[in-house]
Amino acid sequence: MSRQRRRLVYEGKAKALFEGPEPGTLVQHFKDDATAFNNQKRGTISGKGVINNRISAHLMMRLGEMDIPTHFLRPLNMREQLVREVEIIPVEVVVRNVAAGSLSKRLDIKEGTPLPRPLIEWYFKNDELNDPLVLDEHILAFGWAAEDELDEMFGYALRINDYLSGLFHAINIRLIDIKFEFGRHFSDEGMHILLADEISPDTSRLWDLETDDKLDKDRFRRDLGKIEEAYQEVARRLGVLPKSDRAEASA
Amino acid sequence: MSRQRRRLVYEGKAKALFEGPEPGTLVQHFKDDATAFNNQKRGTISGKGVINNRISAHLMMRLGEMDIPTHFLRPLNMREQLVREVEIIPVEVVVRNVAAGSLSKRLDIKEGTPLPRPLIEWYFKNDELNDPLVLDEHILAFGWAAEDELDEMFGYALRINDYLSGLFHAINIRLIDIKFEFGRHFSDEGMHILLADEISPDTSRLWDLETDDKLDKDRFRRDLGKIEEAYQEVARRLGVLPKSDRAEASA
Repeated sequence: MSRQRRRLVYEGKAKALFEGPEPGTLVQHFKDDATAFNNQKRGTISGKGVINNRISAHLMMRLGEMDIPTHFLRPLNMREQLVREVEIIPVEVVVRNVAAGSLSKRLDIKEGTPLPRPLIEWYFKNDELNDPLVLDEHILAFGWAAEDELDEMFGYALRINDYLSGLFHAINIRLIDIKFEFGRHFSDEGMHILLADEISPDTSRLWDLETDDKLDKDRFRRDLGKIEEAYQEVARRLGVLPKSDRAEASA
Repeated sequence: MSRQRRRLVYEGKAKALFEGPEPGTLVQHFKDDATAFNNQKRGTISGKGVINNRISAHLMMRLGEMDIPTHFLRPLNMREQLVREVEIIPVEVVVRNVAAGSLSKRLDIKEGTPLPRPLIEWYFKNDELNDPLVLDEHILAFGWAAEDELDEMFGYALRINDYLSGLFHAINIRLIDIKFEFGRHFSDEGMHILLADEISPDTSRLWDLETDDKLDKDRFRRDLGKIEEAYQEVARRLGVLPKSDRAEASA
């Protein structure tokens, strides 16, 4: 299947989706492009697409083994993976273990303060509105998701957060917070909710357990330098760093 | 009881609370001061205190008859009423029937659009943070209220909104949205949640049913003029306008 002849289904900031080889599948292509602050800051993180493709595939497979349904089907190549086609629920689910980012700003809680328990937030996925924080009430009243879908996403988000917190701790990384997107997958057996999008340093905050060094997109957002190195370090600790990373990253 | 010798317990933007004549009571004093946009806009609405004292007393009494527990005990004078002392829960409860104000801005919904159902929002009562919108999750994690308290406030807010929507409709006013504050009242029988604060054109949006004329604090916020007249009109339609309003308002 040559890239030229494929139909582009969706192009986002960090990824593109192409029609897949079988019905109900999509090719998820990871780009090096990075944006922050609702597109006000744009840039490129060299090799990010290759690394995030690896990291996300690895973590989605692990979650699948835990009976958490995800859209991931199989790796395709350095920058691409095959995923199930889903109808994305326009509600981003954020789980926070430690205060950082917008939570710290909104509620004036010092970054790095552990939260009394994992905190789950909903954001309405809408670039024009700058992904505003919303309550269950808004989601239900405007029909963005149904109540049982919220319950299911809430439950999955907590489980995934627990699992990933453990997994990252084992490689000396603290999972500060993470964003999930879920989608509706329709099959002969009815509709199921799947974890979609990606799990990567683009969609989470990952701090080194000993030094509190940021190993995530905050290095890009806040111009902290060593951005590529941070992504590589996460992949390396997870054991999924491509062997000849630089060569492959520019492939 | 002379005003000079009373102990001031709390002074807010639109009201002051003094120690009451009996233990567990407070004198709630209504001022003419008005603020908006988190204190950035300040002014005076002549006679507002007198009118809001009347309106709030009237509506709290009606709610009491509907078995909705409120802090209101009895009127005292033109600007003051006796209320039960409560521990204010730092969560403002907003019920919206029609999109307006911050909801319209945040989610880009045209002002005046009826909502598919009454929408309940929580705001963390904190001037320094500009009363941010919060989720149940934040409230529970940070201990601002307990889950059963949220359930109780949610239930009361819906009932009060229903009752007041009917009451206002009967006098040709549409209740667009309204803010409630609740408090914990401790007595020999244990802890009970009471509706506290006030119900007035300061804490709600009230539009004339036929003309959509605003009869509430938005006239002050948005410099629409005829501010005093709007408050008087609400009191007049409710049948609680003081007889010699101007004289009493400046008392």
